[in-house]
Amino acid sequence: MRKHPISLKTLAQALNVSMSTVSRALKNHPDIGPEITKKVQQLAQELQYSPNPLAMGLLKNKTRIIGVIVPDLVTYFFSSIISGIESVAEENGYYIVIRSSYESYEKEKECLENLLKLRVEGIIMCLSQETTDYTHFDHLIEEDMPLVFFDRVCRTTEVDTVVVDNQVAACHITEHFVERGYRRIAHIAGPAQLNITRERIQGYKDGLANTGLHFQDALLVHCDMSIDSATAATRQLLALPQPPNAIFGVNDTTAFAAMKEIKRQGLRIPTDVALVGFSDEFHATVVEPTLTSIMHPSFEIGQEAAHLFLKQMHTKIKMPAQQVILQTHLVIRDSTIAT
Amino acid sequence: MRKHPISLKTLAQALNVSMSTVSRALKNHPDIGPEITKKVQQLAQELQYSPNPLAMGLLKNKTRIIGVIVPDLVTYFFSSIISGIESVAEENGYYIVIRSSYESYEKEKECLENLLKLRVEGIIMCLSQETTDYTHFDHLIEEDMPLVFFDRVCRTTEVDTVVVDNQVAACHITEHFVERGYRRIAHIAGPAQLNITRERIQGYKDGLANTGLHFQDALLVHCDMSIDSATAATRQLLALPQPPNAIFGVNDTTAFAAMKEIKRQGLRIPTDVALVGFSDEFHATVVEPTLTSIMHPSFEIGQEAAHLFLKQMHTKIKMPAQQVILQTHLVIRDSTIAT
Repeated sequence: MRKHPISLKTLAQALNVSMSTVSRALKNHPDIGPEITKKVQQLAQELQYSPNPLAMGLLKNKTRIIGVIVPDLVTYFFSSIISGIESVAEENGYYIVIRSSYESYEKEKECLENLLKLRVEGIIMCLSQETTDYTHFDHLIEEDMPLVFFDRVCRTTEVDTVVVDNQVAACHITEHFVERGYRRIAHIAGPAQLNITRERIQGYKDGLANTGLHFQDALLVHCDMSIDSATAATRQLLALPQPPNAIFGVNDTTAFAAMKEIKRQGLRIPTDVALVGFSDEFHATVVEPTLTSIMHPSFEIGQEAAHLFLKQMHTKIKMPAQQVILQTHLVIRDSTIAT
Repeated sequence: MRKHPISLKTLAQALNVSMSTVSRALKNHPDIGPEITKKVQQLAQELQYSPNPLAMGLLKNKTRIIGVIVPDLVTYFFSSIISGIESVAEENGYYIVIRSSYESYEKEKECLENLLKLRVEGIIMCLSQETTDYTHFDHLIEEDMPLVFFDRVCRTTEVDTVVVDNQVAACHITEHFVERGYRRIAHIAGPAQLNITRERIQGYKDGLANTGLHFQDALLVHCDMSIDSATAATRQLLALPQPPNAIFGVNDTTAFAAMKEIKRQGLRIPTDVALVGFSDEFHATVVEPTLTSIMHPSFEIGQEAAHLFLKQMHTKIKMPAQQVILQTHLVIRDSTIAT
């Protein structure tokens, strides 16, 4: 592979024929005689000529690049989803360019603009925590540019989305606590503007209602899903006059932070406080006690998002927006089994 | 942002002037009169014309894309490094395209070929576990294409590299065990062909020698850094007639797997077996006991690699290969404090 690759022009000059002759000879075009076709193909092979995909892409307005925007790259959930997107992209001859919004609305808009400047063929993304206005997607939607949201989504009637059954999963968590005898069940929720927050809160409330418990304002606290913020939320809950004896964290990171704080206060898990997370990272099996959590199919979310993207790429007519809802299940471990 | 962006040609046709006139008017070229310059610039603004960076890049053989190859995307260590590369790339107007080698030599070659086909301006990468032949980098090195290796490196006299002081760090770990009174110290090392494996083994042996202990073959086992393989290595060590009372894992994942297995066998950490990892992931603070580990500056590794890359991009003459060695330090936690 050379730094300055052999061009069509070089081949044409070397053989003293036109570039269009070379181009057609490489494609075995019937207009070009067998002798010259053979000569061109031989030289192309000798010089390791390979067509420039970007140049070809520009001619057809196709770069074969998918822009991917995630809130961050380091959380297992997102890196695993990216891995799923990449695997499908690669199988189909696409490249992915990744940008992080660092959970900022302004940064998200900037990422989008930058990727469009690079002439990506479309976007697969997860909204930032701060994003409450969705007009920056207007142009993409109007122009029918391939666009897929996953996990944190918006404009679901217009845009394809991949999500999990957040409400069902959260309801299941609450009911699981009740089955194990816990009745003061708290929820450390995510930022209020996100669909995952709203859906998990609704599921949490459904679970309370289904088991005859009343929702109590004091037992629902929000965090921004950072470790510090989840620790503060846990402290707030444990400082209540009637503290909870069960906590459902909006994700595993939140639950790990809660676990650390509960132990720091000298309380035992699950005897004093039971705990459930949401994601089921490998680490859920290493912490002590091991963490009961919702199995989140992150790799599959990435694969499904890429499949929806490719479907949009290959569909000429506009289709109604599709929502893929992946199933989850609760993996029960020691943090909810009183020993 | 439009799907089919306004081209120079559209502007030229709309104003009935040549494309070269439009091009020069946009750059305030003195050959173009002020009136037509104003007209062109106004229309360009109205129609939201923006130059196509890929088309411009192709003219100059510059795509502003850096190819990044990692063994996997989901390990915190790699996703954190990618995050560091991305942050510097973004500040400097570069894009990164990521490919995973999935620890396969064949896949690594394929990733490299694919990225070069995309006309990336250079490569930042970490070798796969299987890679023992390095000739697939010949062309890049011959052609002076920007290339940086990080963590797992090769051809260090020819290529810029970013690593940590593996040998010093591993020696420090062994000495720390001895200070705490442990004398049967085992090491679960990585695959033999990797520089990080060799350097950490050397440091482990240095530490033994410095403290008057003899190296014992049986106490050094290799793993492929997967959870299953690390678990098997731990079992092998614990089944020895004289099992170790201290284990140094080649990374945190290995140490977490060892922790799980040690506890499964009913042994106490650190009373029966002390444990140290290498990476210092957040999870080291959540597992029980919390894990003593080497603080690995992963984000900075990514930043340094990107800086070296940009330096190569902007240096016309060939410079001797540079090796950036980042310092680490041992973070002592409960897994090595007998309580």
